[in-house]
Amino acid sequence: MNSTLSQLRGAFTPTQRLHERSAFLGTIDSTFRGIGQVIFINNPLSGLIFALAIFLYRPWAGLLFVAGSYACTLFAHLLDYPLERIRSGIYTFNGSLVSLLLANFLTPQWNFGILIYAIIAAAISVPLMHAGLVLLTERLGIPTLSLPFSLVGLTVLLLIPTVAYGYANHALLSPVARVLASPNVALRPSHHGDPVPFAEGVVQAIIRGVSETFLLNSPLVGILVLVGILLSSTISAAAALVGSTVGAGLGLLLGADGYQIFGGLWGYTGALAAVCLFGPTAIFKPTWSSGILAIVTAACAAFLFGSLGQYLAPLGVVPLSLPFVLVTMAAVLAAQGSSRFSFNADRG
Amino acid sequence: MNSTLSQLRGAFTPTQRLHERSAFLGTIDSTFRGIGQVIFINNPLSGLIFALAIFLYRPWAGLLFVAGSYACTLFAHLLDYPLERIRSGIYTFNGSLVSLLLANFLTPQWNFGILIYAIIAAAISVPLMHAGLVLLTERLGIPTLSLPFSLVGLTVLLLIPTVAYGYANHALLSPVARVLASPNVALRPSHHGDPVPFAEGVVQAIIRGVSETFLLNSPLVGILVLVGILLSSTISAAAALVGSTVGAGLGLLLGADGYQIFGGLWGYTGALAAVCLFGPTAIFKPTWSSGILAIVTAACAAFLFGSLGQYLAPLGVVPLSLPFVLVTMAAVLAAQGSSRFSFNADRG
Amino acid sequence: MNSTLSQLRGAFTPTQRLHERSAFLGTIDSTFRGIGQVIFINNPLSGLIFALAIFLYRPWAGLLFVAGSYACTLFAHLLDYPLERIRSGIYTFNGSLVSLLLANFLTPQWNFGILIYAIIAAAISVPLMHAGLVLLTERLGIPTLSLPFSLVGLTVLLLIPTVAYGYANHALLSPVARVLASPNVALRPSHHGDPVPFAEGVVQAIIRGVSETFLLNSPLVGILVLVGILLSSTISAAAALVGSTVGAGLGLLLGADGYQIFGGLWGYTGALAAVCLFGPTAIFKPTWSSGILAIVTAACAAFLFGSLGQYLAPLGVVPLSLPFVLVTMAAVLAAQGSSRFSFNADRG
Repeated sequence: MNSTLSQLRGAFTPTQRLHERSAFLGTIDSTFRGIGQVIFINNPLSGLIFALAIFLYRPWAGLLFVAGSYACTLFAHLLDYPLERIRSGIYTFNGSLVSLLLANFLTPQWNFGILIYAIIAAAISVPLMHAGLVLLTERLGIPTLSLPFSLVGLTVLLLIPTVAYGYANHALLSPVARVLASPNVALRPSHHGDPVPFAEGVVQAIIRGVSETFLLNSPLVGILVLVGILLSSTISAAAALVGSTVGAGLGLLLGADGYQIFGGLWGYTGALAAVCLFGPTAIFKPTWSSGILAIVTAACAAFLFGSLGQYLAPLGVVPLSLPFVLVTMAAVLAAQGSSRFSFNADRG
Repeated sequence: MNSTLSQLRGAFTPTQRLHERSAFLGTIDSTFRGIGQVIFINNPLSGLIFALAIFLYRPWAGLLFVAGSYACTLFAHLLDYPLERIRSGIYTFNGSLVSLLLANFLTPQWNFGILIYAIIAAAISVPLMHAGLVLLTERLGIPTLSLPFSLVGLTVLLLIPTVAYGYANHALLSPVARVLASPNVALRPSHHGDPVPFAEGVVQAIIRGVSETFLLNSPLVGILVLVGILLSSTISAAAALVGSTVGAGLGLLLGADGYQIFGGLWGYTGALAAVCLFGPTAIFKPTWSSGILAIVTAACAAFLFGSLGQYLAPLGVVPLSLPFVLVTMAAVLAAQGSSRFSFNADRG
Repeated sequence: MNSTLSQLRGAFTPTQRLHERSAFLGTIDSTFRGIGQVIFINNPLSGLIFALAIFLYRPWAGLLFVAGSYACTLFAHLLDYPLERIRSGIYTFNGSLVSLLLANFLTPQWNFGILIYAIIAAAISVPLMHAGLVLLTERLGIPTLSLPFSLVGLTVLLLIPTVAYGYANHALLSPVARVLASPNVALRPSHHGDPVPFAEGVVQAIIRGVSETFLLNSPLVGILVLVGILLSSTISAAAALVGSTVGAGLGLLLGADGYQIFGGLWGYTGALAAVCLFGPTAIFKPTWSSGILAIVTAACAAFLFGSLGQYLAPLGVVPLSLPFVLVTMAAVLAAQGSSRFSFNADRG
């Protein structure tokens, strides 16, 4: 790889000092770095590709996604939080996910009230992220990850279907009674649909698992997300695929609902865990030990997705990124004080 | 204001050394300071007015309230906890709330068993408060607030309706199935009653919101609580009204159940948050920034009341002060390291 | 007591350096110390008696119990965790409980898949215990206790009855609708069975409470567990009996379901709390104050068992050791900074 191309990869150095020339362009750069941080990539080009993927999937979702992300960047400046973190997108990505979540669960599209609603909900994640960084990361040595997104998201999803002006899409937020019956394990694209061939179903499950890291169930989004990750780091793209495969594989081994597996729900937590833990800019240096750690963590995250999903189903909500967040926090703590694992100096 | 009157306000200095002359009178002073601390006021005269309000509302509740509060003060002495905190009422107010809660949810009145029950439950909050102060406040820099009350309260409310000698008022503790239907938004004094004029409903909602900081739905209590706060601090009284207004306003904006809003349930968390965060003896110094912070925190507390209410409704219990506690903890952390906010030296 | 016998008691010194002579024998010694640590006893002879009790109760459960325990010891070595802790059984006992839990809730017996399943689930508790020790014990001064067991156990019990290859015994994991009816308080050995005489019922409840510290409802196991504790410490055996009595007594006082009380469910958390807090190698030195603390903590743990049981019943799961863990953590924090309580130097 020549040096020009290498500058575009990893933490993308060319625009790192952009804010010194133009405050406005700096906030744009921070926003797209933040969008990249949804999957732990500090690279505005990757963020641009992720945003494009969502625009292509549904323009209204793309609009809310970018608007919410930009609002978070501005709000972090307003609150005078540390510049270096703002510029790395650390205060932005939780809000990116919050606004995207509301694009999925609120209805109708192209509604000005929902735009305002999404921007406010996204912005609330900024002080919550700072609170998490102060308490968890600085005082307790635990990465905060997307915990603020999950907390804001669950809080919103619990309330909005029960108020008159909540814009909730009730069809997506209905309580599910807990039943202890054996599910239909066949991989299939709809709940009552016909199964697809196994190999096709597995490939779909893996790609859709990568897509679900952005809360969307779409092979096109999955492929574009992989391209965006690949642009920044080949290892991270491989980790995303392996993590999603581990999660989907665990779902198949346990005999989970094949519709859930097909849709990527068993894969996304694993993809997040693997990218977060394993890679040149990940929490751990890429070694054999951290590779195994990432795989085990991905499997545990998928298992916890299943458990928390059962816990939350009677309330009509889903566990969002909580399974990934909790398991990854535990993995980081579990590796401290063991000689088997090497942390990257700039993460944690 | 002349200096004699000013001595009666704020932290009420005349009795601060009372325990040096009489241990007994010291415990009385601590107890009424603790009753004042229910709404973060270290002033026994305010506490006296609050206790009076509850006696007027229902004498049996007043008896349990004062007895539980006094038991906590004594128990804190028995456990040899720091004198300065005992004398400020810090170990008392959680138990005040616990005993008042049991006065509301246990039946019948004037029952000796319930008196004993309330005193024991209140006393348990004392070591729990110390545990919170050691872990949260000292080690993690988070205010403990009324977390012990919420934990003891929820623990008791979950169990007592399912045991034979729990004295539970089953009518108030029935599970509510989660329904995703649009609620009746009209402000009204009973669930199936007629709506009141909007302006009257809003005033009722705000005053009852102040009353609900003491777990009671009564305009008389609301007004007396305001008088008690006013005696200590004009700013705090204004903050209570603004906080309650913000919460009730958010409920109206979202289209929450108008019966809940009317009864002050959307206002009390906001009132608590605003008094706790904004004022001469509050966590933050009163500035424009901390004013906006208090308003945003009040709105978030009200929103979280709605969400946690939905979460707990199928269990037949209510979130007590948990929404206020969690949001206020987050607000304190979110303000740390930002130049926008100034902490009062003696709080935090 | 002569010095030879005294060597066998307490922390059992004769094998403390066994790993220096034989790595294999060292892992065996660590494993049985770990089994002893289920009830906070660092003594492989006690562990041997506990394992024997479970083999006698149900050989398949004994096999899973020992296999899961041994797997944890090996896994802790593989992860290069501190040798001293491994040798005290600290990394083993959570996995002992996890594998025993799966022996109870999975079906059929003598199934190779379940053996593998139990070993993997047990092993996951090892890094989780290390995470707990790093975060809770080292950074926050809170004992981690069997929190990892409860977290792994609840995660597994929530998911397995809803997947096709989960081996779940559905009869034991059915959701229970929350009903606010007065339960049958008569002590009795089956849900719809006839009551036994009160005195017999109380004795059964106490002994079965000790048995339930190992998740089993059996007077034989209860007696053998007492013998195992007695071998290490007379005070600890007395504490187990008193703790179980306190819990059962509270259940009777509150009017809890007599079938639950009879089966030891109201006693086991109290037994765990009392042994953990009071004794020569417990968290507190045995004094009058710590005795009262242990009794109050036992009562609170039993109360929380009732509450959390109600919270979890609609999900078809039980609170495992969570009530004991949470209350004991709070008790340790509540005693810090009070002159009334003396900590043992080597615990905490």
